[in-house]
Amino acid sequence: MSSTAGQVISCKAAVAWEAGKPLVIEEVEVAPPQAMEVRLKILFTSLCHTDVYFWEAKGQTPMFPRIFGHEAGGIVESVGEGVTDLEPGDHVLPVFTGECKECRHCKSEESNMCDLLRINTDRGVMLNDGKSRFSVRGQPIYHFVGTSTFSEYTVVHAGCVAKINPAAPLDIVCVLSCGISTGLGATLNVAKPEKGSSVAIFGLGAVGLAAAEGARIAGASRIIGVDLNSNRFEEAKKFGVTEFVNPKDYDKPVQEVIAEMTDGGVDRSVECTGSINAMISAFECVHDGWGVAVLVGVPNKDDSFKTHPINFLNEKTLKGTFFGNYKPRSDLPSVVEKYMNKELELEKFITHEVPFSEINKAFEYMLSGAGLRCLIRMDA
Amino acid sequence: MSSTAGQVISCKAAVAWEAGKPLVIEEVEVAPPQAMEVRLKILFTSLCHTDVYFWEAKGQTPMFPRIFGHEAGGIVESVGEGVTDLEPGDHVLPVFTGECKECRHCKSEESNMCDLLRINTDRGVMLNDGKSRFSVRGQPIYHFVGTSTFSEYTVVHAGCVAKINPAAPLDIVCVLSCGISTGLGATLNVAKPEKGSSVAIFGLGAVGLAAAEGARIAGASRIIGVDLNSNRFEEAKKFGVTEFVNPKDYDKPVQEVIAEMTDGGVDRSVECTGSINAMISAFECVHDGWGVAVLVGVPNKDDSFKTHPINFLNEKTLKGTFFGNYKPRSDLPSVVEKYMNKELELEKFITHEVPFSEINKAFEYMLSGAGLRCLIRMDA
Repeated sequence: MSSTAGQVISCKAAVAWEAGKPLVIEEVEVAPPQAMEVRLKILFTSLCHTDVYFWEAKGQTPMFPRIFGHEAGGIVESVGEGVTDLEPGDHVLPVFTGECKECRHCKSEESNMCDLLRINTDRGVMLNDGKSRFSVRGQPIYHFVGTSTFSEYTVVHAGCVAKINPAAPLDIVCVLSCGISTGLGATLNVAKPEKGSSVAIFGLGAVGLAAAEGARIAGASRIIGVDLNSNRFEEAKKFGVTEFVNPKDYDKPVQEVIAEMTDGGVDRSVECTGSINAMISAFECVHDGWGVAVLVGVPNKDDSFKTHPINFLNEKTLKGTFFGNYKPRSDLPSVVEKYMNKELELEKFITHEVPFSEINKAFEYMLSGAGLRCLIRMDA
Repeated sequence: MSSTAGQVISCKAAVAWEAGKPLVIEEVEVAPPQAMEVRLKILFTSLCHTDVYFWEAKGQTPMFPRIFGHEAGGIVESVGEGVTDLEPGDHVLPVFTGECKECRHCKSEESNMCDLLRINTDRGVMLNDGKSRFSVRGQPIYHFVGTSTFSEYTVVHAGCVAKINPAAPLDIVCVLSCGISTGLGATLNVAKPEKGSSVAIFGLGAVGLAAAEGARIAGASRIIGVDLNSNRFEEAKKFGVTEFVNPKDYDKPVQEVIAEMTDGGVDRSVECTGSINAMISAFECVHDGWGVAVLVGVPNKDDSFKTHPINFLNEKTLKGTFFGNYKPRSDLPSVVEKYMNKELELEKFITHEVPFSEINKAFEYMLSGAGLRCLIRMDA
């Protein structure tokens, strides 16, 4: 056991005191893990759109003060009562959604939407006692999606922790905690393109490029990137994108453009924007008879997906996915292995790097659309 | 070769001279089959809703005079040039959609929507020369979906003919030509329920009951029938339906009723009504994480399928199917074998029987909603 086990740890965390205001590095007290919880020392974290979305708090009830962060890599510092499959020193990726291994979803081969530990953006406390493990000068600070990785130490439910190969570089594989796995799994686990097939990717941000990386790994021969920003095409080539379509360049719907390029439609499409129009285009651009469209982007709450039902009768399939259909504990270790055996390339997703003390720069990069992932080094 | 090969055959056919008017039994002349065509002696045919829909001609451009009929069993009388896998005497089921075995769809394991021979309700002539093989007193009579089985003899493209086990009783297996295979395949080939799972079937007509029969064969433990006519439940029990929901009995949407009955939703649903509201309910009533909804019913041309995209993100899948995803020539023989080995029960679908001379009674039965399939005996 580490010397800190069972003790409150004082460390640095980046606290969001108010919506949209720069984070403040504070000295926080992190309580010991309770039953079925683990306390992690975070070594690397990165910023994802979801952090920014909830930090801006434009689309949901604000919950502040809060410690954001959910893409990270770290080491187990101590474990709470009942935790048997993790121990201090384990290298882990915390995940915003969990796997209890007991519920119907965890027991189903088809689902990763654990009843107990499924993402809950409205909960700012731990499940065990309904309280926070963080406090600053005695004031509780809310958790975020059960991870709160913008802290040198955090407490996470043991079901939200994937134990990985300790030889894997945490400063690289930490990006598998969320967005990259989401896009990659959407292609590899759900769209499942065959070797030599055609795949359209809507949205060439980090998630979309991870979906393209999945298509590249699967051996797709045509990977058509669709984005409203033509500047993204050059970078997208590194991720296997072979052709580019900017819907703004055409007078007709992009699904028609793609159908003409591909003799009736692509074999698979993956939608990674969250725009309802992109979702509809992604569905309608797949080939009849065998086409499969996969929705990844998170829609607005008032959106309505509309299409003529004859598209379904023509044997097009529409699926959605959550975290790329990966079960966090069962499946993430094998994704890390895909990186270790050089099948999956991750370095190209990490375009920026800042020390923890400059975490607000990572927000600036994302808000300005610069790059893909900004790595945040906790020790710097 | 039969003595009639190469000759025009005069025989009886039921001609629809006008939309919605009783068919008239006429002496028709049936020309010999041309290249890649076969001429069939029809022994049994049955009436399907699609015949009635195009006979009423309320939703499409009328095409008359026409010989309807597309569910049937018969024997090859003669074959045209280039036909190598059929010969006179073969027992066959003509099918309204075909399989050329050469196009991308036929070569795909996932599709049965042959580019060359896919159903075309707007074409009333043969592909080879753009002309009809039928005439009455010198006047050409239009074909219907390439089959026109309301005739003692008909000419069909060889790619629209499934050669089956000659020991199979044609007066029973003829119903596999269309509706029964459509419903059965929707469940067995597309929804693929696991043993012990729950399945909702929307619409308890012949197609829906065939979908239920598929669920019974697959070993589903709960088969929930949904229909606006509660009288259908009693008969539906014979097809494995275990529970019944009439949406009219509830103040809330039927998808909510089903979700409450099944702890969050059924594992699979199959929609066999063509009503857009039923399609939406069928999708929304499946369980998140693993639910699959399959659309079978043919929608109206102005319908719009609408749902909140979060339903997809919650890992529900929506698929449609055409002819139960069966490839007519490759797959129908094995469906006939399912009947021969008593896995599939077909007798219960045939609730009425009339001689060919009384074919209009079959229309009356269907229009009044009586029974499932009316067998029409050509020799009586």
